[in-house]
Amino acid sequence: MATKNRISVAFQGERGAFSQQAARQLLGEEIDVVPCQRFDEMFQAVASGRVDAAAVPIENTLHGSVHENYDHLLHFELPIVGETNVRIVHNLIAMPGVALKDIKKIYSHPVALNQCLKFLAAHPEMERTTFYDTAGSVKMLAEEKRNDAAAIASSVAAENYGAHILRKSIEDDRQNFTRFFLIRRPGKLKGAMAAAETARMESAKDWKSSLVFTTRNSPGALFRAMSAFALRDLSLSKIESRPLRGKPWEYLFYLDFLGKADDEVSQRAIAHLGETADFLRVLGSYPKGAQSK
Amino acid sequence: MATKNRISVAFQGERGAFSQQAARQLLGEEIDVVPCQRFDEMFQAVASGRVDAAAVPIENTLHGSVHENYDHLLHFELPIVGETNVRIVHNLIAMPGVALKDIKKIYSHPVALNQCLKFLAAHPEMERTTFYDTAGSVKMLAEEKRNDAAAIASSVAAENYGAHILRKSIEDDRQNFTRFFLIRRPGKLKGAMAAAETARMESAKDWKSSLVFTTRNSPGALFRAMSAFALRDLSLSKIESRPLRGKPWEYLFYLDFLGKADDEVSQRAIAHLGETADFLRVLGSYPKGAQSK
Repeated sequence: MATKNRISVAFQGERGAFSQQAARQLLGEEIDVVPCQRFDEMFQAVASGRVDAAAVPIENTLHGSVHENYDHLLHFELPIVGETNVRIVHNLIAMPGVALKDIKKIYSHPVALNQCLKFLAAHPEMERTTFYDTAGSVKMLAEEKRNDAAAIASSVAAENYGAHILRKSIEDDRQNFTRFFLIRRPGKLKGAMAAAETARMESAKDWKSSLVFTTRNSPGALFRAMSAFALRDLSLSKIESRPLRGKPWEYLFYLDFLGKADDEVSQRAIAHLGETADFLRVLGSYPKGAQSK
Repeated sequence: MATKNRISVAFQGERGAFSQQAARQLLGEEIDVVPCQRFDEMFQAVASGRVDAAAVPIENTLHGSVHENYDHLLHFELPIVGETNVRIVHNLIAMPGVALKDIKKIYSHPVALNQCLKFLAAHPEMERTTFYDTAGSVKMLAEEKRNDAAAIASSVAAENYGAHILRKSIEDDRQNFTRFFLIRRPGKLKGAMAAAETARMESAKDWKSSLVFTTRNSPGALFRAMSAFALRDLSLSKIESRPLRGKPWEYLFYLDFLGKADDEVSQRAIAHLGETADFLRVLGSYPKGAQSK
């Protein structure tokens, strides 16, 4: 079972992943982190009670929604209780004492390497080498005590493995943000997790709720579904269709609206949506995450 | 300038990428392919007239929309003239004469490795090693004449580099499809490209059109925008909101509907949408792509 005095949080990736930063933004620095190799392992860890919560990446401004995690949200039925946004800042990281001029190789995940093309073009002497994970590449530098190489990863990764940042923020595009959900097991909480949630809920000003639904296959079906919100002046902050494979012209919709699912107007809107939807699930209501820096 | 007798098609990735398969599905086997390192290079190649067309991945059933390519569609203003879906089939590929028992290392892009976890778990003797590109890992095996390693990539990659497939379809999830757009320069076409487009257009039964628009920041704005289609019985096949960074509560919407943009009813719907949208662009009308195998 999860510890009672410190909150344990699962995330996908190595220690120092951007997901760890999301977990800190949501629950503070005093947390125990449990890295997982795959997304489903992280959901499994929460469902089994091995950890208190998980930080789940759900969409990125450049790469879109992480459909796999929507699938897990539906399958595991773990409520969303928080939201945060992390700006993806890539740093050039090396072991202490290693200077920029010493770097012959740069290791990172291919996606991160591709997001730092301007820096890499300006340093043709540094050979780029792919690695399975951004934070994992810093871990490798530390384990192998490399003095001829650098990694591209988050500042949390540098801190985790006793490395230092040679160049801050070398990403090409600063408009690169990932939105994370905080999930936990349903029901009553205990200990540190209960205290943290009460504090987060009490300080919340704006709320958001996330739904998944399917509509019948007919023109205007989505239009009717959305009337449940529009006619009640409830603002949507996300709508996305996802084709159901093997079922041509049937779609799953992800919808977020501004409101708390147990407010009266939200309850009525959700009931109204239920009349037109074939399937409807409220994934959670949570304090709206801060705009990231 | 692009050749007149054979169509030249740009795509992102090495020869043998899934994008090359998309290009073949759209334009046949007799095409000249022009691999590009980045998505923007592929758009630039079309815009400058260096190639006739490009195959652009726009969404994946597991990973969602490729927002970066929507950005390039808006920036380069190159019309979408075709659509196709490619099932992402991962194969274990080695050089001729290399058997399964010889394999000590498996190379591929981390995303592909992560989509073949069941196979990898059943073969712990094969060490997984990340590579910048799926097809690129087959190219490397061929160049280095490796007899101790395999790659995970498409069947087109095996064919391209004279390699053979040791195990077909080792991916965990068969519901993994990528949707591609075919783009070209606006205006009148010549030669092979003109003939191919005429043939594709004449055999088209169903049409789709893709739009991008923004709405004013008010509850119900999207609802009103969608009435332009719902009230005319035009079916939507995609709707997706994307927050505009730095402009809280302003969204860009991607919308696909079933219809040809120059049909009368479509023209009226688009004009109606234009009344409620702050910004509206028709990205293209194209024959609906076949359901993939």
